[in-house]
Parts: sequence; C-alpha cells; structure tokens
Amino acid sequence: MKKIGVVLSGCGVRDGSEIHEAVSALLAIDQAGCEAVCMAPNAAFAVTDHLVMQETGEKRNMLVESARIARGNIRDIKDVKAADLDAIVFPGGFGAARNLCDFAVKGAAASVHPEVSRLLKEMAVAMKPIGAICIAPVLIATVLGKEYATVLTIGTDAGTAAEIGKTGATHQECPVTGFVIDTKNKIVSTPAYMLATRISEVYAGVQQCVKEVIKLI
Amino acid sequence: MKKIGVVLSGCGVRDGSEIHEAVSALLAIDQAGCEAVCMAPNAAFAVTDHLVMQETGEKRNMLVESARIARGNIRDIKDVKAADLDAIVFPGGFGAARNLCDFAVKGAAASVHPEVSRLLKEMAVAMKPIGAICIAPVLIATVLGKEYATVLTIGTDAGTAAEIGKTGATHQECPVTGFVIDTKNKIVSTPAYMLATRISEVYAGVQQCVKEVIKLI
Repeated sequence: MKKIGVVLSGCGVRDGSEIHEAVSALLAIDQAGCEAVCMAPNAAFAVTDHLVMQETGEKRNMLVESARIARGNIRDIKDVKAADLDAIVFPGGFGAARNLCDFAVKGAAASVHPEVSRLLKEMAVAMKPIGAICIAPVLIATVLGKEYATVLTIGTDAGTAAEIGKTGATHQECPVTGFVIDTKNKIVSTPAYMLATRISEVYAGVQQCVKEVIKLI
Repeated sequence: MKKIGVVLSGCGVRDGSEIHEAVSALLAIDQAGCEAVCMAPNAAFAVTDHLVMQETGEKRNMLVESARIARGNIRDIKDVKAADLDAIVFPGGFGAARNLCDFAVKGAAASVHPEVSRLLKEMAVAMKPIGAICIAPVLIATVLGKEYATVLTIGTDAGTAAEIGKTGATHQECPVTGFVIDTKNKIVSTPAYMLATRISEVYAGVQQCVKEVIKLI
C-alpha cells in the first residue's frame, strides 16, 4: 500500500490546519487505496478563538492538536524520512503559513520549521510527488522555489502570487476546483479555501489534487 | 435552500465531535444542495490530549472548539428553534455521549444538556427528520426513546445496544456503511466509527444517512 504523508500544523483554519481540507485529503487518500501517514512538528503555536476570530494569548502544541484530526495516529515529523513515504501532501489553513513557516509575516523572506524544510528537501531529492493545498504552496515555494524553479498555484490572490514570485517559484492562476501540475518537479497544487465558498468545492479540488499526486508516484 | 442543523460538541473524537464524521456530514449536506446550520452548547468540557489519549485536567468550551469545525459559522444552540430548521443531524464522537449528555457514565439513566433536549423534543413534535451518527443515537434514545418508541442503530455493540433498550428505544444491528430508518419518527442512524476502520467507510455511511434525512423532509 502506498504511503502518503499528510503534514498537519494544528486543528483549525485560523491557527492550524484547515479541518475540511485536511479531512478531504485523508478521505481522498483512503478512497484511492493508499495509507495516510499523519505528522506534525512537536512545537507550540499561538491559539485563535474560532468563535470570535481573535488570538487568546494561549499556546497549544501542533502535534497534540493535529492528533485530533488524525484520531491519535500521528508521528512527530522529526522521525519521518522521505524513505518512509511515497508522496507527501500539505493541507492549508493559517498554520501552514504561520506555524510551519512564518510566510504570513515575512513573505518570501520566511523561515521554515527545520524538520519541515528537511523533509521537503528530501522528498525533492528523491523525486517523490508533493501535493500542496490552499496557502500551503507558499511553503513549497519558500523551500524549493529557487533551486527547483517550481510552478504552483494559490488560486488568484495577486499579493500572495507576487510574494511567491520573489522566492524564485512561478505562480499560475487556477480556478477553485482545478489544480496546477509542475510535471518536472512532481508538485501538484489546488486553491481550496483560497477561493472556495463551499466545502464541496474544497473536496472536489483536494480529491483531484490527491489523485494527481498518486499518479506521479 | 433547506436548512440542516448540525449539533457539535467540541472538536476531536475523545472529548468532542468526531472530526471525520462532522466534516462528512457538512460535505454531504452541501453536496445535496442544502445549508448546514452548525450549533453547540455554550458550556465547558474536560479536555483529552489526543496524542496520548489521556485527560489533561484542562477545560475548554464546546461552542468555541466546535467553531473550528464550522470555520466560525456557528450558533449557540440555545438560540436555535425547530422552526429555524428543516432537519437536524448529530455527528458522533465521545462529546455526543459525555458533553451533550452523560450517557457514557450513566447509560440509560443519563441527563441531557437542557437545550439539546429542548431542541430534539421540538424537532420530534414538528415531525422534522433527525439524523444520528456513531454513538449519537444514544442521545436520541435518551430524549425520545420512551415517548416515541424510536428505532435506531449504533452498529453491533451489545452493551450499548442493551442500554439503548432500557430507554424504551429499540436497537437494530447494522453494517458499517448501512443505516437504519425509523420511518414513523423520521429518525435515520448509521454506525460510522462505532464500526468503521477507514474514513472512506465513515463518509459512505454518513453520506447515505444525510441523503435519507433530506428525503424525509
């Protein structure tokens, strides 16, 4: 059974992994007859109250909160190597841009969590496929954009697209349930909630993205 | 557009709503062209760390944590009336049996959160359909079992089935992606993670359950 890594960053759109995107990815992986290998960094993040959409000042742990989405079946990303996986997928949510890296604050000058950066580079060297959903392509662009001249999409947001361009990656516009394939680098991206207004659009795009990632294995 | 209530109890299988079941319900409702109306009680619950699966002693709030699944689009259940809804669906997770009621501790002698009980009784009086996923049928049985002689399933677990029998409801065994319909009372139930070992089984059962609920409107 093919093993697809799913890199989580918490549990909730505003301070972690977007839950609908993460669950859509897990569902699409299982529907394709593959095994999801959930992982997250063992590190703190700043909590946002999702009822009032304001930061609370509280800290929680990415690995502990991501375990809610994974039903406890999750690994510390530091223990996962590219050799353990056939492909890897990054759901979106603010966590992808402010917990796994600080792109949300620093744009193209972002720093990336060292274990996330290490695993992404290992996957690229091994030529194993990478899927990136919603805002997560900014992470791929930050780590791989310059060296690999990656091509990807975050939908149509001009400001984010411009920052992606500064990393050395190329942004392509894409409709909500579509996807962009960088064939040379085996990177598939889809806009999901960067454009979606309905969960059914998210599922449709993520399912296609996951299918294309699996085809590239 | 038909409005389907979705009653949440937190965000995570061990101390709130089971995330895969809740997202499957939201997806199935949207795919059917209906609108989900998410709600939860504004009340505290005891937190379980989902990495080590142990209680932490911490308290969080059901409405605030459920808002993660609902992306902030959620109402306090006390403000929702049956007249606002065409049907209602209860995802599972331990939260359904220990936050919305205390069936997990007291079985058929359980107390139910007063606003959950009030809304369920209003829906029954209005003859509006009710969907119950995984362990959530115990809540329906506790509130409506005796008066309405409800028929429902939690899969095949004999101990839980026996407790359901004590409420006055009748339990029927059901395979993992199947469902039981109580036509007289317009109640549809499906086992989901009471039996499922894969997220694709959960989605298949929940999607069928939601479709049947919508047919009964």
